[in-house]
Amino acid sequence: MSDTVVVGLDVGGTSTRATALTLTGERLGTGRAGGGNPTSHGAEKAATELLKALRGALADVDPTRVAAGTIGLAGAARLLAEPAGRQAFDQAWRDAGLRCPYDVHGDALVAYASGTASPDGTVLIAGTGAIAARVCALRLDRVADGHGWLLGDAGSGFWLGREAVRRLLADLDSGRAPGPLAVAVLTELLGSAEVSARPRDTVDRLIQAVTRRPPVELARLAPLVVAAALDDEPVAAGLIDEAAAHLAESATRIRPPGAVSPVVLGGGLLTGDTPLATAVRAEVGRRWPDAWVFSAGDGAAAAAWLAALSLPEVTDPAALHALLVPPTA
Amino acid sequence: MSDTVVVGLDVGGTSTRATALTLTGERLGTGRAGGGNPTSHGAEKAATELLKALRGALADVDPTRVAAGTIGLAGAARLLAEPAGRQAFDQAWRDAGLRCPYDVHGDALVAYASGTASPDGTVLIAGTGAIAARVCALRLDRVADGHGWLLGDAGSGFWLGREAVRRLLADLDSGRAPGPLAVAVLTELLGSAEVSARPRDTVDRLIQAVTRRPPVELARLAPLVVAAALDDEPVAAGLIDEAAAHLAESATRIRPPGAVSPVVLGGGLLTGDTPLATAVRAEVGRRWPDAWVFSAGDGAAAAAWLAALSLPEVTDPAALHALLVPPTA
Repeated sequence: MSDTVVVGLDVGGTSTRATALTLTGERLGTGRAGGGNPTSHGAEKAATELLKALRGALADVDPTRVAAGTIGLAGAARLLAEPAGRQAFDQAWRDAGLRCPYDVHGDALVAYASGTASPDGTVLIAGTGAIAARVCALRLDRVADGHGWLLGDAGSGFWLGREAVRRLLADLDSGRAPGPLAVAVLTELLGSAEVSARPRDTVDRLIQAVTRRPPVELARLAPLVVAAALDDEPVAAGLIDEAAAHLAESATRIRPPGAVSPVVLGGGLLTGDTPLATAVRAEVGRRWPDAWVFSAGDGAAAAAWLAALSLPEVTDPAALHALLVPPTA
Repeated sequence: MSDTVVVGLDVGGTSTRATALTLTGERLGTGRAGGGNPTSHGAEKAATELLKALRGALADVDPTRVAAGTIGLAGAARLLAEPAGRQAFDQAWRDAGLRCPYDVHGDALVAYASGTASPDGTVLIAGTGAIAARVCALRLDRVADGHGWLLGDAGSGFWLGREAVRRLLADLDSGRAPGPLAVAVLTELLGSAEVSARPRDTVDRLIQAVTRRPPVELARLAPLVVAAALDDEPVAAGLIDEAAAHLAESATRIRPPGAVSPVVLGGGLLTGDTPLATAVRAEVGRRWPDAWVFSAGDGAAAAAWLAALSLPEVTDPAALHALLVPPTA
């Protein structure tokens, strides 16, 4: 059984990670490459990064030993719907020397599986966008939000960035002196925290600075909110609490009251010990007091675990999860 | 004194209106033309519509009798800042046969003056966008919101339309049957109120329908919210109350607690006996119980009144307002 190798890939918008593991949990190799999300980069580019990451993971592995593989990526359904995308991925898979089949899953399912082996539960993700999904028998079932910045993504990095600017604009409208978060946002957007003698001039310059770029780039201000919240800045702390309430509300759309299945928190704003993760854990604890909450971990390892579940020799998925996927908080 | 004629123009995004009045309140002529806002249509187009409206108002008037004129338009400051814009307006003014000077004021000031003769007060406008402004000595002083759809316009037509779609998406996420407002929004956006067997497919189609158009066009859904609120539809009624709270909050940024000066409500969503006007009057009454609240009225007449204030023979502005500007609720 230790001869059997599985491969997992976690394809994100900014990086692609691959890992090759034996069923005893031995890590034979890992690979990294640039962003490979076919939605944002095109299938050809995505397949190129996929192959690069795969070659890194398989540098010291005979690829014919690999028995199964899984690719987790955002927009998985769209990739599978387009023959050209599927063909580009097939080609990369063959070029890496792999002879086994592979599955493609949504990144939300892979994030979920990186936090728990439970077949049923909820995954809540906040990065640039925000989405909640119900997982049943390790398949994505119903989804809430993920509606994009114009209509949704409540509690996401975009949302935090936009709200930080809105609070700053309200301060300027009211003639209040900007607080620490407002000063950080002013400095980031205008290069200086100075407010014009007519504050409306600063308002106009801020609006121009924001509208010059694609709206989704407001998400780049989210780290300022997180940093300020870590310093107990009151406006930032309030925004983090509001964002957590929005995320928990999205989860309630697809998670029944009293549910005890696990909740996995993923995405850049919720993975690990972040202020938003702490606030979301509190919200989840209030609504589902008997549920375990886990942080998403190694997505590539979770994808490898999902791949292994298709093998006949795997009889105890939870035990295998403990071997393959590094534990998280 | 009755020989003296003043001219007023109210230049909006979709229509331009002009009126010629004597100082005794005799209406000598009115003119209408297409949208003339130089921000959205270009100064040349705006000046063409301006001239057309002026010619209508002056059809039966010797233009040399006109002693003063005022143009109210959105983005007035921008027009004055650009020589080409000012020149195009100067040319239209001369082409109409007018020899007197003219002033340009923001549309918010003209809306204010269409509701009251008081030199100091607050104007609150909700149409596609939303803005509140303090008026001091019949000049726009401090402004709140008007930040545009991405960062502000809280409580505006855009805001109502976007929130109506967001409530519908939340229903679909949750598996709830759409209520009357949600059905109206579904029908408007997708041509049918039918929800797919997988509600997520309807979610995706709604998002596509919205994102195919410029975001600001979400404001076209606002009349659905208003109509549903008139039928006491609970979601619509809740959105109207939320919008009113946002608008009142914007006003608090520029209006001190306990202020007793008048508040004028303008814009398509607040002019007259609309559900949002009723809700805003309630909010204003709670915050400023001693203030009169007026509805904006005839902007062109108000512009003519503002023009007349520059004439030496005008000694009682309030009495002249009563003669020139038709009263509103």
